[in-house]
Amino acid sequence: MRFLAMNDPGDNLFDLTQAQWDEAAARAGESGHEIRFGRSSEEFAEGVAWADVLLAQTSTLYGRFPCTAPNLKMIFLLSAGVDKLRPFSNLPPGVAVLNNSGVHSRKAGEYAAMALLMLNARVPEMLAQQRDHVWQMLFSSSIRGRRVTVVGTGDMGSPAGRAARMFGAIATGVRTNATPHPDFDRVVAVGDLDTVLPETDFLILACPLTEATHGLITRARLALLSKGAGVINIGRGALIDQEALCDLLDAGHLGGAVLDVFTPEPIPRGHRIWTTKNLVISPHVSVDDPITYNPDSFDILWENVRAIRAGEPMPHLVDLSRGY
Amino acid sequence: MRFLAMNDPGDNLFDLTQAQWDEAAARAGESGHEIRFGRSSEEFAEGVAWADVLLAQTSTLYGRFPCTAPNLKMIFLLSAGVDKLRPFSNLPPGVAVLNNSGVHSRKAGEYAAMALLMLNARVPEMLAQQRDHVWQMLFSSSIRGRRVTVVGTGDMGSPAGRAARMFGAIATGVRTNATPHPDFDRVVAVGDLDTVLPETDFLILACPLTEATHGLITRARLALLSKGAGVINIGRGALIDQEALCDLLDAGHLGGAVLDVFTPEPIPRGHRIWTTKNLVISPHVSVDDPITYNPDSFDILWENVRAIRAGEPMPHLVDLSRGY
Repeated sequence: MRFLAMNDPGDNLFDLTQAQWDEAAARAGESGHEIRFGRSSEEFAEGVAWADVLLAQTSTLYGRFPCTAPNLKMIFLLSAGVDKLRPFSNLPPGVAVLNNSGVHSRKAGEYAAMALLMLNARVPEMLAQQRDHVWQMLFSSSIRGRRVTVVGTGDMGSPAGRAARMFGAIATGVRTNATPHPDFDRVVAVGDLDTVLPETDFLILACPLTEATHGLITRARLALLSKGAGVINIGRGALIDQEALCDLLDAGHLGGAVLDVFTPEPIPRGHRIWTTKNLVISPHVSVDDPITYNPDSFDILWENVRAIRAGEPMPHLVDLSRGY
Repeated sequence: MRFLAMNDPGDNLFDLTQAQWDEAAARAGESGHEIRFGRSSEEFAEGVAWADVLLAQTSTLYGRFPCTAPNLKMIFLLSAGVDKLRPFSNLPPGVAVLNNSGVHSRKAGEYAAMALLMLNARVPEMLAQQRDHVWQMLFSSSIRGRRVTVVGTGDMGSPAGRAARMFGAIATGVRTNATPHPDFDRVVAVGDLDTVLPETDFLILACPLTEATHGLITRARLALLSKGAGVINIGRGALIDQEALCDLLDAGHLGGAVLDVFTPEPIPRGHRIWTTKNLVISPHVSVDDPITYNPDSFDILWENVRAIRAGEPMPHLVDLSRGY
């Protein structure tokens, strides 16, 4: 098979390399394939007209379709979210889109645990005191028994649920349907979200951005959260009404937030979010790991190629009608 | 038995109350005891001349001995550290000193997990960027496989070891003797500390302050830590050369620190530690929980009273010759 690996024109930290490719092929026992690496628009146009499979982070493919890709059968995204590929009608007809869902789980769990413990221990308030050189003891109870609601029960949401339960918190998962999930004490359908929010101490957003989830956490829903509740977002900035979140933090209705994703990114200088009260910012890195990211992704690629050859369903096939 | 419960003259958040006492006695099936509550110096003098047992946080007893206490048989400290009772020669001869070792474990584990994940995820650098309104992605790998060294394997150190291993880090415990401990992958004697530091990614101080541990982490030992290592202190400020720690953080040899204890406390306004690079401050609250603290401590008290009556060794008896 012919593979085109496109790297980001603006950033080489996550570059796909020949060495990574060779090592992953050796691990998978694969040989006889051809691979080209590209970065420029010219390399994309030439390569995609030749390749059977295109590999890239979703952001690298933004605005590249439609294009001439007569042989292309598969786009393997080195990302979990596919939102930047829209509109999907621009993609070559019949092409299978796969993502690397799974490589984010370990770091998602670590980030969720960290953010939950920070919010529960009132670290955002402590950071403000430190900035003002103020020593004032701020007490809190253990996180055991606190109520954590996680929107999304997939690649990022389920490790977040596990992280909460590791410390004895009670985890509620929110997904399309109320199908039980082993990483959660209970699961509710997204249609019942409003009944869960008033009894939520910490809300974690860990779902894909789709037409159904865009703006899901409205101002009205944020106001339903119990007084002093905390918010964590490792999904996408557009899942939430960011202005309302800032208003409720500044007003003290919400106790704190730890956010990895924003609208827009990068956050512009002077934007109110930099100085919103009790808000901690990480620059969209929560689930990325430059050391393990590409090797893990390549292993997922070969797992799916083996599934095709065996005539089995590809485990990482994205359902474009749902958007994940 | 006659009990005197002394509360802090300056702070009533952790006051011992009649209701807590009654509930704990009911849980323990105890009755027929007398209790007085005091706060002032006069109440102390009068009460301690009458009581069999004195209950107080260690800091509340600072400077109160020697005093007239003809009946006093036991001092039950609602603290783990006994350092503020020194010199022990001022205490009434033959009095048993007990602490509430054990009530700090759950929050110590949560704090250790939080601080480890923050340092591993480079949160201190992110906070500095946020302060400067700078968006720059800062990547890190999972904490799995990172090397965590915990000085102290008791009430606070062992949950720190468990917290590290929960996320797949490798935990080394440091204690007086190299006796294995179930919460650590290995244990080394404190005399071998210098061999462990160069292969330590994160150093956690969670031991009591004693004559043997005062200043244990010298400038030379901090310099032995691997470049970019992180430091966490939930023990006492005087365990470490704080000036050296600040120097090594400001110079970038150390990657970050999350500290709950300092010399002195409160940290004075204008002290360099407020603005030391990549240093996160919590105001000596890591293991305190106002809701569960006194009830848990009272339960420990009755556990020890039962041991005396049964002629068994008291599980929370402090060895004053060792200081813990």
